Amino acid sequence: MKFHTSYLTFNTKRRQEIIDITDEVEKCRAAAGIQEGMVLVSAMHISASVFVNDHESGLWQDILDWLEKRIAPWSPDVYRHNSGTGEDNAAAHLRSLTVGHEVIVPVTKGKLDFGPWQRVFYGEWDGQRSKRVIIKAMGA
Amino acid sequence: MKFHTSYLTFNTKRRQEIIDITDEVEKCRAAAGIQEGMVLVSAMHISASVFVNDHESGLWQDILDWLEKRIAPWSPDVYRHNSGTGEDNAAAHLRSLTVGHEVIVPVTKGKLDFGPWQRVFYGEWDGQRSKRVIIKAMGA
Amino acid sequence: MKFHTSYLTFNTKRRQEIIDITDEVEKCRAAAGIQEGMVLVSAMHISASVFVNDHESGLWQDILDWLEKRIAPWSPDVYRHNSGTGEDNAAAHLRSLTVGHEVIVPVTKGKLDFGPWQRVFYGEWDGQRSKRVIIKAMGA
Repeated sequence: MKFHTSYLTFNTKRRQEIIDITDEVEKCRAAAGIQEGMVLVSAMHISASVFVNDHESGLWQDILDWLEKRIAPWSPDVYRHNSGTGEDNAAAHLRSLTVGHEVIVPVTKGKLDFGPWQRVFYGEWDGQRSKRVIIKAMGA
Repeated sequence: MKFHTSYLTFNTKRRQEIIDITDEVEKCRAAAGIQEGMVLVSAMHISASVFVNDHESGLWQDILDWLEKRIAPWSPDVYRHNSGTGEDNAAAHLRSLTVGHEVIVPVTKGKLDFGPWQRVFYGEWDGQRSKRVIIKAMGA
Repeated sequence: MKFHTSYLTFNTKRRQEIIDITDEVEKCRAAAGIQEGMVLVSAMHISASVFVNDHESGLWQDILDWLEKRIAPWSPDVYRHNSGTGEDNAAAHLRSLTVGHEVIVPVTKGKLDFGPWQRVFYGEWDGQRSKRVIIKAMGA
């Protein structure tokens, strides 16, 4: 059984940002040398997401708008987390819960076994500071 | 360490549809011959979901209504993804992000280790065309 | 390859409740004796969640409020699941779909490989009765 673990660090210019990390996931698979197995990709922070979707910049903007307008508006005043801790990022936590913070990518015959349009993304919901993602490949 | 990989293909009559695939997950476990481990079940498209919930047709309709009315209305005109690409399915992408595109089913003593009402479903959010799901069992 | 499986049982006083189960996840890892691998933590019921977020009581109340006000109001009358089955918990199913019912925790060098604030929680969305969570560690 083989394992390999990589860590990515991001410090985004904007507070919310979506970044394609698929090539890093494949690098971790190759470093593990696995032909069959799974790669876990997981945000190490509670105000960020990892998800699989489409490499299309219009959609990325749709996702940011949708999180703000429909899922969890930033509204710093309405959350107990903000008033209690002096932070303003409660909405980023709720966005992380909605979109999820991790994915598992299947590996078959030495490749990430994705459908035609699938790519892996890091979703930064409270950036402009150093944040990490763990990638762990496991298989044979 | 044992692996087995299966692929399912769906071409739904309706554009949105929910399909119970639990029996296919168990077939993959059995084909792998594992007593302990995990089975990954993952949509290979970015406008579909895989989730665990209840085999109850009223709830399935509730889920479709809830996605349309509360989570991500179809509204083709409001999304950049639609205006930029000529597609109309941005809402299906957002529904996939909300419900998720994959689950991991634990395997214990040669069985899918589910609670009393848990079943695995494929959620098609933009069907009427050929789409796939990967099932990968991994264990011993 | 090593495995260990634990089950937790909850019978919450309140119908909705959020409980930190991180210490139980670590116990399962230690019992498996794995240095590298993954731990699956999964609700065995379809009206509950398992998620990773912050150990902060203001945020827990924000999550409960957000699920009720924005994601899936309890409103027993509006769901087919409730009128068809005599139950009143359709909203709990939708909350489970939104937040998710499982997480995978990476294990590196004999430790749960978490970022600085990450903790694992059980989210009970329809409690006051006996419900279970499975924890399964797998690795080497």
